[in-house]
Amino acid sequence: MTDLQIATCVKPLHIKEIGSKLNIAEDDLEYYGKYKAKLPSHLIDESRIAQGSLILVTAISPTPAGEGKTTTTIGLVDAMNKIGKKTTAVLREPSLGPVFGMKGGAAGGGWSQVIPMEDINLHFTGDFHAIEKANNLLSALIDNNIQSKKRSLNIDPRKVLWKRAMDMNDRALRNIITGLGGNSGGILRETGFNITAASEVMAILCMSKSLDDLKARFGRIYLGDKFDGSPVFAHDLHAEGAMATLMKEAIKPNLVQTLENNPAILHGGPFANIAQGTNSILATKTGMSLSDFVVTEAGFGSDLGAEKFFNIKCREAGISPKAVVLVATIRALKYHGGKPLAELTQEDVATLEKGFANLERHIESLKSFGLPVVVSINAFTTDTEAELDSLLNHCKHLGVRAALSFGWAKGGEGCIDLAHLVAEAAEETLAEFNPTYELSDPILTKIEKVCRTIYGTRNVILTNPAKAQLNRFEELGFGNLPICIAKTQKSLSDDEKKIGRPENFDIKIREFEIAAGAGFIIPIAGDMLRMPGLPGTPSSENVDIDSEGNISGLF
Amino acid sequence: MTDLQIATCVKPLHIKEIGSKLNIAEDDLEYYGKYKAKLPSHLIDESRIAQGSLILVTAISPTPAGEGKTTTTIGLVDAMNKIGKKTTAVLREPSLGPVFGMKGGAAGGGWSQVIPMEDINLHFTGDFHAIEKANNLLSALIDNNIQSKKRSLNIDPRKVLWKRAMDMNDRALRNIITGLGGNSGGILRETGFNITAASEVMAILCMSKSLDDLKARFGRIYLGDKFDGSPVFAHDLHAEGAMATLMKEAIKPNLVQTLENNPAILHGGPFANIAQGTNSILATKTGMSLSDFVVTEAGFGSDLGAEKFFNIKCREAGISPKAVVLVATIRALKYHGGKPLAELTQEDVATLEKGFANLERHIESLKSFGLPVVVSINAFTTDTEAELDSLLNHCKHLGVRAALSFGWAKGGEGCIDLAHLVAEAAEETLAEFNPTYELSDPILTKIEKVCRTIYGTRNVILTNPAKAQLNRFEELGFGNLPICIAKTQKSLSDDEKKIGRPENFDIKIREFEIAAGAGFIIPIAGDMLRMPGLPGTPSSENVDIDSEGNISGLF
Repeated sequence: MTDLQIATCVKPLHIKEIGSKLNIAEDDLEYYGKYKAKLPSHLIDESRIAQGSLILVTAISPTPAGEGKTTTTIGLVDAMNKIGKKTTAVLREPSLGPVFGMKGGAAGGGWSQVIPMEDINLHFTGDFHAIEKANNLLSALIDNNIQSKKRSLNIDPRKVLWKRAMDMNDRALRNIITGLGGNSGGILRETGFNITAASEVMAILCMSKSLDDLKARFGRIYLGDKFDGSPVFAHDLHAEGAMATLMKEAIKPNLVQTLENNPAILHGGPFANIAQGTNSILATKTGMSLSDFVVTEAGFGSDLGAEKFFNIKCREAGISPKAVVLVATIRALKYHGGKPLAELTQEDVATLEKGFANLERHIESLKSFGLPVVVSINAFTTDTEAELDSLLNHCKHLGVRAALSFGWAKGGEGCIDLAHLVAEAAEETLAEFNPTYELSDPILTKIEKVCRTIYGTRNVILTNPAKAQLNRFEELGFGNLPICIAKTQKSLSDDEKKIGRPENFDIKIREFEIAAGAGFIIPIAGDMLRMPGLPGTPSSENVDIDSEGNISGLF
Repeated sequence: MTDLQIATCVKPLHIKEIGSKLNIAEDDLEYYGKYKAKLPSHLIDESRIAQGSLILVTAISPTPAGEGKTTTTIGLVDAMNKIGKKTTAVLREPSLGPVFGMKGGAAGGGWSQVIPMEDINLHFTGDFHAIEKANNLLSALIDNNIQSKKRSLNIDPRKVLWKRAMDMNDRALRNIITGLGGNSGGILRETGFNITAASEVMAILCMSKSLDDLKARFGRIYLGDKFDGSPVFAHDLHAEGAMATLMKEAIKPNLVQTLENNPAILHGGPFANIAQGTNSILATKTGMSLSDFVVTEAGFGSDLGAEKFFNIKCREAGISPKAVVLVATIRALKYHGGKPLAELTQEDVATLEKGFANLERHIESLKSFGLPVVVSINAFTTDTEAELDSLLNHCKHLGVRAALSFGWAKGGEGCIDLAHLVAEAAEETLAEFNPTYELSDPILTKIEKVCRTIYGTRNVILTNPAKAQLNRFEELGFGNLPICIAKTQKSLSDDEKKIGRPENFDIKIREFEIAAGAGFIIPIAGDMLRMPGLPGTPSSENVDIDSEGNISGLF
């Protein structure tokens, strides 16, 4: 059965029944059809948040074999509820663009999914559309100001950093020239589109603590420079009120359900390289206000997702997880050991054990935050007993809790062992997490601390342009912001070919960007693709809908 | 009070109460919050449609003074319900882009509005967003096919007609070059964006009679030519299934309410020059299935909106109105008489009477369809008794029913006289409307018939390129489609400076376009702007939202 077939063979409960499991009054639910609802901000309860247990699901370095972080998160939530712990999943919303590119959903898989999966993967409740409009209104205002003589801010068209956004895999929009057609068509300039998940508006949504905070952050967006070299902010265009108005509904987290009718809150979905890669602070806080446990996830491996989750999101939100689940698979560990992709289904304990180095490095990084780690081995039918035993023994040897999980094949029932370990780990935590750096550290020090503590880097090298940008950002007063390093997810280093556990490597920061509204500085260590393309045979070709509205070929 | 202040001081009923006025089972409503719902297609009842009374509201040639077609439509619906006629308003959805450009809403005005007006004017239920995505998926597939060597259709990048769409006033996107950045960025080509209301996807939505019909129409979209000169259709890219999937919810009409809690169905909003300028066939049929009277409107003056409403929409839908309401204002008629804009509030019966010529021409055009016409004089406080008497007497002299209406100032109470005249007119109609041309007429004959019967044109002149296109479209088998003439709305002629009732003029067709999916040929008689710009001081600067989510400055 495909994911879509599984997702549509389960009858969802009316969303008011999911709401009632969380003691939400029916009048507080804003329905979007029968199976989706938006949640108002007054549900947030700081006193309950302080008592709640937040669990972060992260992973080893991603491989083409797949790790199954979202599937594990959903399976774990269903299992936690089975063992009597009131638990909510809090996840990112998937992006529409990639749905028509490569095959593959983003709402879990198999028997661990959130539903209604076709809605969630298509327009959902319109949050991405609202983000796109807020982003593109700002773009239109920038070009309109450049065009307008009377109220000109003297923005230098060569120095506009802000790009338009579209949630579509459309490589032809990556780099474009706008403003052709003479006088009435505006001023010619080179620019481009990012996919919506890469918009700073998305990052801002997910960092905001209220509508006022959202608006203030929009005002602080750094868009580019004037001809005199001084910076221009969205506030200079009086853009923030209209942008926040466009986000009136999108700021509210979305309630859906797992296949086993447990609550799931989905909200926001920023990139995990140039942004923080995790759902909104408001969604996480809403989940923690409504249930005893919240299980959440952060993008890519722990070097990107978990590091940013702690140092950027948790620090800003004033929250701390009680435990971290690290997802690994036998296949991915064999890949990290050097096994070719085509041979990953063959038993090979020796190569597997070489791959343990990647897992170990992620465990060490996570331990630096001072929280208990539970390894979740996401089981595949091709895993052999010898391989699984070797991995379980290795975890025991490392003194780390570990369990097999079968969320994909069995749903919550397949994750009971994991759930018990997670509940046990969460109970023993008394401390808050230790951040990797202080906000008052110089920017370069922050980068060095993350690179050394989390990636295992030797030295951090800055190019000359990067040095100049660093000085400028410090001069402009951004020195106290956290950092959000953009590097490949495929390696702990900045070279995607270095799998496993790279040693003796340097990280080269080529340039800096700033998300002044979201509130972080982005050291760039590699080429970051912000607008994907479609493959030769786009998956859209298989997507169809019948006269009754039944969708096929989506996944 | 501003429109927004009026709209928000009225407490709307829960949408299920509006649904119950139409005998819609609660389970058939798909809520979008408490005050909006989507309506499923099975509510359409052809037998009730055949008995129902459809009323079209149209107007004289638009002027900067404003006519108030939507306000009249809503006031009339409230008045019809007051006099015991079960009536539903069926309207277009407003476009988001212009909201941030010039001040002015598009959901009625004063005490004749549909609510929740801020939602309706912002994202509403996401229909425009879905249209944009379907449009832009097709664009991405086109560029991806041009880029892809293996599965190439040999599309000539210089001959792609299909443009991207964005619901934003953004002049810099009108003409752009895409595909910069070398190999991985695609093939360089000149293209552009239309505002979403100008997308053929919008026109198709509004012409479709079912989900299957929608999908088939998407497949028939003519996108451009191959290097060998042969045409390429969306079906050649296997795009129609995914495009229709994106429209799964957007195909359903939206139920809201008037300020007086009467039902209003809003759905679609195509341009009225390059497209049919009226709401969807599905919305009109849904309204007619649920109530005895439906009042609807069509864009611009009767030369554009009403003509297309009859010859394109009603013919395709197999429906016919019982009466037509022609909206005029004293100010607009003085403008047509030659009074300068700044002096329109001064009494001037002589100039007013010169302006009657425009009204008369619209009445004549409408009478060609064989249906009764009711003139609605949308009252302004600056109108004098002498002016109003003159106009009422003139209508009497012409043998046309006429009434003053005060929808803006008084809501339904202000349109009671109009409602009685409309109900009376609707009862006396037995005939179906007479189309202006037969579908089997040669394309040029169709154009000549519309120009002569509706505009009062002398001759139709085709440029040489237009002649060549005409031949090609007939060769390609499109000769039996209806025509959708794109010309200025400001004049009955193709010259916007010719106000009043132009005489002895020719219409010059410069070129043709085809909306093969929507199903009409578009003779172009003038410059049609498909992507507006923002003014020097965009209204977005005044838009704000407070911490409680209250919006201000929107209108």
